[in-house]
Amino acid sequence: MAPVDQVNQKRRGRRAAGEDTRAALLAAARETFVEKGYDGATVRAIAARAGVDAAMVNHWFGGKEGLFAQSVLQLPFDPAEILRRLLDGPVDEAGERIIRTFVTVWDATGGGTFAALIRSVTSHQEVANALRSFFINAIFKNLLTEIGAQDRDLRATLCATQMVGLGIVRYVVRFEPLASADMETVVSAIAPNMQRYLTGDLSGS
Amino acid sequence: MAPVDQVNQKRRGRRAAGEDTRAALLAAARETFVEKGYDGATVRAIAARAGVDAAMVNHWFGGKEGLFAQSVLQLPFDPAEILRRLLDGPVDEAGERIIRTFVTVWDATGGGTFAALIRSVTSHQEVANALRSFFINAIFKNLLTEIGAQDRDLRATLCATQMVGLGIVRYVVRFEPLASADMETVVSAIAPNMQRYLTGDLSGS
Repeated sequence: MAPVDQVNQKRRGRRAAGEDTRAALLAAARETFVEKGYDGATVRAIAARAGVDAAMVNHWFGGKEGLFAQSVLQLPFDPAEILRRLLDGPVDEAGERIIRTFVTVWDATGGGTFAALIRSVTSHQEVANALRSFFINAIFKNLLTEIGAQDRDLRATLCATQMVGLGIVRYVVRFEPLASADMETVVSAIAPNMQRYLTGDLSGS
Repeated sequence: MAPVDQVNQKRRGRRAAGEDTRAALLAAARETFVEKGYDGATVRAIAARAGVDAAMVNHWFGGKEGLFAQSVLQLPFDPAEILRRLLDGPVDEAGERIIRTFVTVWDATGGGTFAALIRSVTSHQEVANALRSFFINAIFKNLLTEIGAQDRDLRATLCATQMVGLGIVRYVVRFEPLASADMETVVSAIAPNMQRYLTGDLSGS
């Protein structure tokens, strides 16, 4: 059984019944992880809240880690979809597209999911692994490969420093004026730094 | 009674008896906060571990928050001392001095104290306040004032995004190759971004 392929097939066609189960699990997981943290949120409690059998979590997400990554990291089903959006435009504006994409997603939830993510990351290695798998590998390293960057591993982790730091200051500790700054201010201030991590000279020469 | 002034006077002279109490409390607090987190670490337990009376915590640090800030943030007694170091050289190398100073301090403890800090910050408003008070006001905003920067409030929070993000990626989730990168690699990669937040054009023009 290959749930991810099934999802992709279903998304290409009309909405299938399984999509409802999947969407219900995502919504229930988001609420439960935010309320209880990674440890406190059980697969059983999430499934019960969604009104589906707990076996559906393994079927659709491969387990608690995958459910966490997709519900709390709030990537769409397919990281390739985010990647396609980040690649859709001039390479020298990719840093700006990263900022706009993630700030839009995180602003939409008032930062609650980002705060839950950081709390879990600091105490659970499996969540750190999920973060690495999704952000570093599925997004940043693939983006850097597509734009032909050298030093992809280092650049991907540098991108992560800026995005994680932005998320903590804007959504967790909420330091002003950055916490309330509008999108254009955030983009003007931070996108050039992100762009340097993608395509700039890192050698200090 | 003005403990901070007393400390400064004592530091200017030879080592006083009170210094031993203070140093013992700092060491005990660092260990206890790392083991138990901010909530779990009681003033009583820290004082007992240091072998001193719990009243000494209020005397030397004004309470648990001050003890946390000085033990876990690991600033030296006087934030002015760090500030003086950051100002000691060309303005256009201040970003590099920030990176070198904090990475040196954090590397020395293997990142354990930084991880404890982030865990506490995400769940305790008073720790976020301590972080703002020390990092944003005592260090970054004073630095920006000294170098005559405009938009000091925004720049200070931008500096915080980079330093907090670097700390999390290097010490908490430990994404490679940044987690093991040597100082010169870290400085070459990140100092120019920090410098832009201090003195660069943030308008996006």
